[in-house]
Amino acid sequence: MVEQSSEEILEGADQYDVAFLVVGDPYGATTHTDLVIRAREKNIEVKAIHNASIINAVGVTGLQLYKFGQVVSLVFYEEGGWTSMENRPTSWYDKIKENRKLGLHTLCLLDIKVKEQSIENLARNRKIYEPPRYMTVSQAAKILLETEEYKKEDAYGPNTLAIGVARVGADSQKIAVGTLEKLVDVDMGPPLHSLIIIGEEKGQQLHELELEYLKHYFV
Amino acid sequence: MVEQSSEEILEGADQYDVAFLVVGDPYGATTHTDLVIRAREKNIEVKAIHNASIINAVGVTGLQLYKFGQVVSLVFYEEGGWTSMENRPTSWYDKIKENRKLGLHTLCLLDIKVKEQSIENLARNRKIYEPPRYMTVSQAAKILLETEEYKKEDAYGPNTLAIGVARVGADSQKIAVGTLEKLVDVDMGPPLHSLIIIGEEKGQQLHELELEYLKHYFV
Repeated sequence: MVEQSSEEILEGADQYDVAFLVVGDPYGATTHTDLVIRAREKNIEVKAIHNASIINAVGVTGLQLYKFGQVVSLVFYEEGGWTSMENRPTSWYDKIKENRKLGLHTLCLLDIKVKEQSIENLARNRKIYEPPRYMTVSQAAKILLETEEYKKEDAYGPNTLAIGVARVGADSQKIAVGTLEKLVDVDMGPPLHSLIIIGEEKGQQLHELELEYLKHYFV
Repeated sequence: MVEQSSEEILEGADQYDVAFLVVGDPYGATTHTDLVIRAREKNIEVKAIHNASIINAVGVTGLQLYKFGQVVSLVFYEEGGWTSMENRPTSWYDKIKENRKLGLHTLCLLDIKVKEQSIENLARNRKIYEPPRYMTVSQAAKILLETEEYKKEDAYGPNTLAIGVARVGADSQKIAVGTLEKLVDVDMGPPLHSLIIIGEEKGQQLHELELEYLKHYFV
């Protein structure tokens, strides 16, 4: 939306105030940074009001934020001819591996598909959109394990501890801790979901305080 | 404060609502996680309202959040007999090195000294506190360069690009981009300050979009 409509969003913003509401922190997406650049080119002043984001709200898991490494994004593979393992884009796999080598946790952001067109509708230029899809913790855990099974580089394994979170900050928020293998079977309810792969330090996956905090959430 | 007063904070919270206000996200500090554990032990329900934090608000620099590695904390060295280089705690140095090896940016949180007692007042048990001190971007850049000069492990150098930020989110917010050497001389004004050391990918320190965004802030 933002990519195609930045001209429209900024139209008139040199004469009156235009507010642009986003989910999470306004600078969480490259397209928003781009919007700021375009506004400046038109000499339009920009004021951002920061907001909570999953990047810090993930602290709700009791894991310390300074023990997190790079954030990664997992994507649905069914579309785009990525059904076969060797063709799947898996740059996230190396990042998880790097993080875990350093004993760091990895926050995995899970795919969101909205306003997607089927190949048929796209080909016929029909503006009919598929129902939105949000990757679940269960789907993510499955993708992670399938990829490890194919790559065999020991970035993590079925027994690696991970934390599934859903609807963080909402009253219906859910947290589930377990091995990746166990999280495949967990039902976290409605979106949005995220998954945290726990880093190991000296063979230890969780510190005392973290374990104390998380013990209520084991599956 | 929280460490010593958790009993007091939780007193009566099983009968009426107690609100506890913090700067940044409530789970940004270990002591707050600890407070949640103590509340649960007393069967007191806890509801956290997430907030923006420097961890994500740092996106205001135009750097993409998924290109950040571990967060580090820099501390004042004058106190505690750490004046000599070999005794200084510098675990942050290795973390910056690890981040930069992976081409990642490092957010450096800068020391805050509030309610500190002088050694004399501490010895005499006098509750007289020193004026609060907040590490500046200039002081941080100096500590970084001194440490590199001593360690000589090439984690970064005087010509490494970094970004100083001050009062992020406030109207008086300031951003300054420059080499560490240049940032030693920069005056960012009143607290709070943070410093970001830019990661290098294939010898390139900033991508096109980042450069475009940051060009207004070079010193």
